[in-house]
Amino acid sequence: MSARIIDGSAIAAAVRSEIKAEVERLKAEHGVIPGLATVLIGDDPASATYVRNKRRACAEVGIQSFGYELPATISQDELLQLLSELSARCDVHGILVQLPLPSHIDARRVVEAIPIQKDVDGFHPANLGLLGVKGAHVPFAPCTPQGCVELLERSGVQIGGRRAVVLGRSTIVGLPTALMLLARDATVTICHSKTPNIAQVTRSADILVAAIGRPRFVTADMVKPDAVVIDVGINRLADPSDPRGFRLVGDVDFDEVREVASAITPVPGGVGPMTIAMLLRNTLRAALNQLTAAC
Amino acid sequence: MSARIIDGSAIAAAVRSEIKAEVERLKAEHGVIPGLATVLIGDDPASATYVRNKRRACAEVGIQSFGYELPATISQDELLQLLSELSARCDVHGILVQLPLPSHIDARRVVEAIPIQKDVDGFHPANLGLLGVKGAHVPFAPCTPQGCVELLERSGVQIGGRRAVVLGRSTIVGLPTALMLLARDATVTICHSKTPNIAQVTRSADILVAAIGRPRFVTADMVKPDAVVIDVGINRLADPSDPRGFRLVGDVDFDEVREVASAITPVPGGVGPMTIAMLLRNTLRAALNQLTAAC
Repeated sequence: MSARIIDGSAIAAAVRSEIKAEVERLKAEHGVIPGLATVLIGDDPASATYVRNKRRACAEVGIQSFGYELPATISQDELLQLLSELSARCDVHGILVQLPLPSHIDARRVVEAIPIQKDVDGFHPANLGLLGVKGAHVPFAPCTPQGCVELLERSGVQIGGRRAVVLGRSTIVGLPTALMLLARDATVTICHSKTPNIAQVTRSADILVAAIGRPRFVTADMVKPDAVVIDVGINRLADPSDPRGFRLVGDVDFDEVREVASAITPVPGGVGPMTIAMLLRNTLRAALNQLTAAC
Repeated sequence: MSARIIDGSAIAAAVRSEIKAEVERLKAEHGVIPGLATVLIGDDPASATYVRNKRRACAEVGIQSFGYELPATISQDELLQLLSELSARCDVHGILVQLPLPSHIDARRVVEAIPIQKDVDGFHPANLGLLGVKGAHVPFAPCTPQGCVELLERSGVQIGGRRAVVLGRSTIVGLPTALMLLARDATVTICHSKTPNIAQVTRSADILVAAIGRPRFVTADMVKPDAVVIDVGINRLADPSDPRGFRLVGDVDFDEVREVASAITPVPGGVGPMTIAMLLRNTLRAALNQLTAAC
């Protein structure tokens, strides 16, 4: 029997409409419009698209966005100066610096220059370990891992007491996702490029999260029957029949694995839309938290 | 065949003698004596013993220790004031506040009041997540997890590419140990009280670390033949035949498991002595790092 498709687009739409209602309430009750500053450096077309999509999503739910587009030649000091100004502004509740950054800029210093209460991307390293601690207060969970957990929860998938395997240990996706599942009482295994006999490990998973950036890496034989599969990968595969010359595929061989899994996210339309929805939610929460702040 | 015993006392003695030589060199070349401030609050006899042992270990390798003993009634502000003074002192390179603290004091605030460069216990939450990141700079790894990894490395146990299972997810031991093994390329699984069928998970481990505080929890049937077993537990078991009325046992049933494992740490004499040795090493490193600092 074919797996249930976890429809990330539909779930993200539901989340966005909840956010929209909250944004309206915030404006009506407190006269506050949540604000997100986006900082785009250089002219990478993919980064420009990501930022454009995020700003459009903000507009759709009534969040104000302030776009900053800076040349790739900007110095680190100039960038830090801008972040310092944005940090001080009362109408900017969240700050997002689109990664990757030009090589002459130290990404870690930039990420740490965003005050934790405005770090709506959730990339501040001080949060990372705490994601794994049950009951710990983490101001903002990073958006993609949060999106994965939200997809599971809104699909009625039980996390506590289940075995979860996360493929990938990046600080942006794999590691924080593993830690968030741990804090929700899953028994979590983290696999990576140095894991031998990876299929044997993945076959133990009730919940399998693939975040390694290798197209269709996860095949049917790697998946336990009735597992829930979350595919974080977004890979371009050359496809002459597509007008763009490529199409997007995940880290999971969807056609194969859907015949084994009980539920699965598609690519596109799975985790992707959730990432932006979680950014909107973090921005809304930042605005709510800052209601009681000095400005 | 019976497992090789990983002799933590002997390995810790070797580490301490390396530290002693480094401390002498630091004194001879720079006129600097590494200094550790210990802060003991209240009159819990176990805490007092721990602090006394740490100070004695400092003295043996030539590290200066400054003992502060404060009444359980001390206010949080007074404690924070002391920490602020110690943070400013040039002869104090490391600060250790013995936990647990009285309930009217917020342990997290206290831990975060110790500057990262003097946090020789490695408890600052900003370090926790980074422990799992390959190549990340973490000023001080927490002592017990660092001791576990050091025992493995000095016993010639390969970590990279092996399957490690950590029982326990505390922020002091289980979680940081798991993250440190991950950063060393193990495939890591974290189990805890909500893990069903735990024996099935532990039997997949090439390296099994037990840190759950349950006496003799790990039995032979839970261990894969030839696994390496690290026992972090220190539990008191009533024993009328012992003059103290109890004896110390680990989280592992040593007598049973030694017949299955290829190597195993005893309790006492395994991880315990390593914890203090790692504290001494962190203090030495703090002094070395602070050579170039303002004071």
